[in-house]
Amino acid sequence: MEHTVRIRKNDSTVELRAESGTRLLEFLQKNSVRVSSPCGGNGTCGKCRVRVDGIKSQPSEKEKSLLGNDALENGIRLACYNKIQGNLDIYADERVEKAVIVTEGIKRDIRLGPVIRKEYAELPVPELNDQDPDLERILKKAGGNIGQISMKMLAMLPDVLRSSDFKVTFVYNDDSIIAVEAGNTVAVLYGIAVDIGTTTIAAYLYDLNTGRHIDTFSAMNPQRKFGADVLSRIDYTINSETGLKSMHNEIINCVNGIIRDFTTRNNIGSRDIYAVTFAGNTTMMHFLMKLNARNIAVAPFIPVTTNLHNINAAEIGININNDGRAIVIPGVTGYIGADTVAAALSSGMYEDEKTSLLIDIGTNGEIVLGNKEWLFSCSTAAGPAFEGANIRNGMGGVTGAISVVKLVPELKITTIGNARPIGICGSGIVDSIAGMLAAGLIDETGRLADEDEAEKLEESLRNRLVDEDGKRAFLLVSAAESGNDSDIAITQKDVRELQNAKAAIAAGIRTLVKYAGISFDKIDNVYLAGGFGSFMDIESAIGIGLLPSELRGRIKSIGNAAGSGAVEALLSNEMLKMTERIKARIRHVELSGSPEFTEEYIECMMFE
Amino acid sequence: MEHTVRIRKNDSTVELRAESGTRLLEFLQKNSVRVSSPCGGNGTCGKCRVRVDGIKSQPSEKEKSLLGNDALENGIRLACYNKIQGNLDIYADERVEKAVIVTEGIKRDIRLGPVIRKEYAELPVPELNDQDPDLERILKKAGGNIGQISMKMLAMLPDVLRSSDFKVTFVYNDDSIIAVEAGNTVAVLYGIAVDIGTTTIAAYLYDLNTGRHIDTFSAMNPQRKFGADVLSRIDYTINSETGLKSMHNEIINCVNGIIRDFTTRNNIGSRDIYAVTFAGNTTMMHFLMKLNARNIAVAPFIPVTTNLHNINAAEIGININNDGRAIVIPGVTGYIGADTVAAALSSGMYEDEKTSLLIDIGTNGEIVLGNKEWLFSCSTAAGPAFEGANIRNGMGGVTGAISVVKLVPELKITTIGNARPIGICGSGIVDSIAGMLAAGLIDETGRLADEDEAEKLEESLRNRLVDEDGKRAFLLVSAAESGNDSDIAITQKDVRELQNAKAAIAAGIRTLVKYAGISFDKIDNVYLAGGFGSFMDIESAIGIGLLPSELRGRIKSIGNAAGSGAVEALLSNEMLKMTERIKARIRHVELSGSPEFTEEYIECMMFE
Repeated sequence: MEHTVRIRKNDSTVELRAESGTRLLEFLQKNSVRVSSPCGGNGTCGKCRVRVDGIKSQPSEKEKSLLGNDALENGIRLACYNKIQGNLDIYADERVEKAVIVTEGIKRDIRLGPVIRKEYAELPVPELNDQDPDLERILKKAGGNIGQISMKMLAMLPDVLRSSDFKVTFVYNDDSIIAVEAGNTVAVLYGIAVDIGTTTIAAYLYDLNTGRHIDTFSAMNPQRKFGADVLSRIDYTINSETGLKSMHNEIINCVNGIIRDFTTRNNIGSRDIYAVTFAGNTTMMHFLMKLNARNIAVAPFIPVTTNLHNINAAEIGININNDGRAIVIPGVTGYIGADTVAAALSSGMYEDEKTSLLIDIGTNGEIVLGNKEWLFSCSTAAGPAFEGANIRNGMGGVTGAISVVKLVPELKITTIGNARPIGICGSGIVDSIAGMLAAGLIDETGRLADEDEAEKLEESLRNRLVDEDGKRAFLLVSAAESGNDSDIAITQKDVRELQNAKAAIAAGIRTLVKYAGISFDKIDNVYLAGGFGSFMDIESAIGIGLLPSELRGRIKSIGNAAGSGAVEALLSNEMLKMTERIKARIRHVELSGSPEFTEEYIECMMFE
Repeated sequence: MEHTVRIRKNDSTVELRAESGTRLLEFLQKNSVRVSSPCGGNGTCGKCRVRVDGIKSQPSEKEKSLLGNDALENGIRLACYNKIQGNLDIYADERVEKAVIVTEGIKRDIRLGPVIRKEYAELPVPELNDQDPDLERILKKAGGNIGQISMKMLAMLPDVLRSSDFKVTFVYNDDSIIAVEAGNTVAVLYGIAVDIGTTTIAAYLYDLNTGRHIDTFSAMNPQRKFGADVLSRIDYTINSETGLKSMHNEIINCVNGIIRDFTTRNNIGSRDIYAVTFAGNTTMMHFLMKLNARNIAVAPFIPVTTNLHNINAAEIGININNDGRAIVIPGVTGYIGADTVAAALSSGMYEDEKTSLLIDIGTNGEIVLGNKEWLFSCSTAAGPAFEGANIRNGMGGVTGAISVVKLVPELKITTIGNARPIGICGSGIVDSIAGMLAAGLIDETGRLADEDEAEKLEESLRNRLVDEDGKRAFLLVSAAESGNDSDIAITQKDVRELQNAKAAIAAGIRTLVKYAGISFDKIDNVYLAGGFGSFMDIESAIGIGLLPSELRGRIKSIGNAAGSGAVEALLSNEMLKMTERIKARIRHVELSGSPEFTEEYIECMMFE
């Protein structure tokens, strides 16, 4: 039996048929209706909210508690708790969910010299005295080897050579010819650098002849509908028979969409794009290459590969030139990925005599410590709190998220895009908790002030200590002021989530410094990489103990350093090869099971 | 409008529907009914004979003259001259058309050491102190490079390693790992050598661990339905939009059929076959790799490639292990192909201090002259007479073909398979004409004895000078004695065809010897390669001037030397690499447009 599901979105309605009994979440995902689902449909995060008419069953206690009364009264339900048992109307008015990505790394002078390059050549025209085969004619002129000339390219050679009177352009991948084009096309050669974050994807289009930056595109990672963090996504690929395929297809389709956008917007041909470099964490690189990441999820956390891969782009479905290359930047381990190596590259720390500490804070914190002599790395599981997940009103760093919070002299919030607030992102949470600590709303153990303690606070703050769905919370924005008719508040549980998260990062830093056998005063630069590091207020981060106060004054955000590294690897073969050297030089410290780390972690749980 | 065409074959009938107006030849080929068509459907060879009921139109004069009266009376028509205009019954009783291939080359001691080899390894099992990725674990143990590990292989790595507790077998292609198998599978490794002749295909199955020859298979080249020789086949790929695709598919399907047969008959898995080496002329190698051969057909005769190609077998559709290799032996020019290089290899001439002359006589004659110091080659267009084409009763060297003819003391014929004669193959034609020359039935200009001259011959021969379809001919077998109720005879035109063919070969030999600046007495060995060379009577060949009488006593058949070379390249990486050295060393002499050759050719036209 089938039912009709009408998707009402802005001014349009799409009518779909659904098999009776289909879970609403899967149905919406399958039909590309954007539904947030950080827990991967496990019914624990309460994020897959949809406004829906027509559901007859009453919500379960669990669904009720996740939704809260306001949402329920507004016709909101959780897609993962409900099956399609009759005709439905879904209101999918979409918020503009454009990612804000910081793409400014440290300025470095990179010598332009991409691994993909073109060269014009006039070949001798065949005659009875010169019967070299087409391919031989090319090899004699070009040197290099033929290992990467595809059968398809070979098949086109006779036409390419003869349509251009044997005046051609060679395309090289390092020392290998990968393509031959008719005529002189040297001036036309493009490449793209892509940073695949778990949450957001950033792509940069470059002219490989001039090194000119042409365009940037950022998008949410469409895989997030299968789970917010890498672990839920790996779970999805284990539990669903076609999970890995879906995960792979999502990212490939997204990248292809970006390529389409780049080519249309800038009026270039996709066949003139010959290279895409990829940075991202090890799991993202696995999904990109359709490799099974399941052994990354369990100890001892073994990836299939962290090598540099320079492969035919078409082989993984990337729509650039048929003979173009997908270049996957190397990583170190399951949790120190290509993104970290790329960030280490663009930070310049690998060639600096001074010692630097590179920190990328996300669901996992990746930390690299070192200089031109030595490099150490570790990764630490912060959980998704900094990404806004597992936080009552948490959300990613997109339009409408509260990103800055000041409690004194009076409560003041700033949202991304200056929109009406609809939730709070990582930097806002850190600000809030730093402010609540300073104001005495939380004690050093992380406990929210009880009724008695609240009496000592000033009234404006005391009044914000409220009940949210029966639990004590600090109200940031009331339903009336918010953009989605819901209170936005920090709960006791939110504080605990953050304590765990900051302890993981702080303990990771301290352990790595100990392993390197140095003290904090020997660290000259602290680089915060990634979007969260850029938005986060450094004083707030020090305030909650996320960053060591010993390093105050030496901390600097360097934006999307992974993206910058991917760009460097795109524009410079020397830098691409440097990623392999950095990979080889990094000595990784495994924190799981490390007693030093455990000890530090317990100490760092406190606010002090 | 459609008609019904019933294909009656042995005991079965297949009923097909045909669009009215479809040419019968294409219809039969499309439906896999084997019809000979050496001229490629051009209406000139008269070979696409089918017994058919239901054709209402009368044959044209041209069809009549090609068929002869006997055939017409027996309901035989030419498929290329007739369209389907009504319901038809086709009698497709098939002769057993098993190719007889000579596969014994010169015995050489080849050190076993194939380019594809296996190695067993026990890898360290991952733990928290040893977090190398799966791939890294392999590279550390195996050395080598990863350039040829496919994405598919990478995707399977986690399962392969963990299902076998990290005890695995590496498969190498030269220095590159191409596959990793679970457990110790070193003992199981097979390879196939294939010689793709224009007419016949020979394949040899080997155990790559022991060098043991397991099985041989030979088949007719299924592409011959698109034309008997390389030029008609190239024409077909030019004239038909899907011609190259069909040509490629035919050979791939044939090879895959042979592989299926090998695996079934010998109870081995196709996934345990990791290498197929290919020899064949340059056009056949192009069709194998789906490369356009059209520039080989016209001056200056330029192939796409004559390089050695070691490619993923699956990429060209060969059904062995997914990561197995198709290894295409290199050639020299459009008409000195991998078959000639392979034959030069297996003859050993390239390392011999003595000078050898290697001759492969077919539609084209390929000739190589030289020793360990120098090598020259040329090719010469003999036309298809030696293959039995363009000869009234000519046929390939298959069951029922007259292969040996003696005129004295009395006419004596021998057929392949000792079957009732149905035609005559190349060696039989050479024998016949040598005998006719010796007996005075032909003069030195090639003219058949006229009535007056015949008076001087002895009666038994004189009586065999008959009229066949109004033309003078020498009767070998009368319709009553033949296996197909038709006279088998040598016509004046047949003699002319042979004169042209033998002149081309003889002139090629003389020109090449001249280019090398030596005389016949400096040539120590003459090797006749290929099936025709094996069956041909050497004295007859000298008798008609095909081979120079100066070389008498030094001429030796070496069978399918190309096939033997492909086997050597399969079993020994050293020999495979030697093919590249031979290719590089050969200096090719282009005969077209050579005045020396033209002069020799005219002289060699005479019988003397």
